[in-house]
Amino acid sequence: MSLNPQYQQIGETFVKQYYAVFDADREGREKLANFYHADLSLMSFEGVQVQGAVQIIGKIKSLTFNKIARAITVVDCQPTFDGGVLVNILGQLKMDEDPVHGFSQTFVLKPMNDSFFIQHDLFRLVIHNQ
Amino acid sequence: MSLNPQYQQIGETFVKQYYAVFDADREGREKLANFYHADLSLMSFEGVQVQGAVQIIGKIKSLTFNKIARAITVVDCQPTFDGGVLVNILGQLKMDEDPVHGFSQTFVLKPMNDSFFIQHDLFRLVIHNQ
Repeated sequence: MSLNPQYQQIGETFVKQYYAVFDADREGREKLANFYHADLSLMSFEGVQVQGAVQIIGKIKSLTFNKIARAITVVDCQPTFDGGVLVNILGQLKMDEDPVHGFSQTFVLKPMNDSFFIQHDLFRLVIHNQ
Repeated sequence: MSLNPQYQQIGETFVKQYYAVFDADREGREKLANFYHADLSLMSFEGVQVQGAVQIIGKIKSLTFNKIARAITVVDCQPTFDGGVLVNILGQLKMDEDPVHGFSQTFVLKPMNDSFFIQHDLFRLVIHNQ
């Protein structure tokens, strides 16, 4: 068991890289496959659970908005005991001409071969007038 | 590596038990120590990080509100590959006579001796007019 002292930097760098790809253009979202493991990645997207890079990218590609604008409010990171990083993001996003929504996304980054993959990805919109 | 098929039930039961103790009365919050590990528990509370049950309960006991009312909007759970559970909660809370705030809390439950302890605990208020 080892905590990575660079966990905050690793988490923040990951967040920038991941959302840069996600938010760039609709066709390019399939490049997000590079962040996931073929088998050992789990995603929960608005309560729908899928496992593995192919299924996860299929879910992401099924999203129909073309443009997304995103504002990050806070990125909280914790080191995990296997050298990975737990990342929690709160922010706001706007898809096409929809209203602005809050969102919450949690990632667990797992170390592998001097890099990391997303082991857990959990996304929810935060509805303000709940 | 094994995924626990009961992850959703484990997560939801934990959430009920944890908040029942947290929300009952101010003095009783120290009983939350039973949910944490002496060393292997990490908490981030509004960006402040502490490690270990004693430090975590110290942080919780430093909170000055007497009453808290809480409404859970959604509990998302994922199995972790060590038999534990990742839990993400979105909801609203009201401390004493303060305005209602949204909140986000993430737990990672780690299996130990036929039970679980909180390995990671990450709490943030969600400010609506960000």
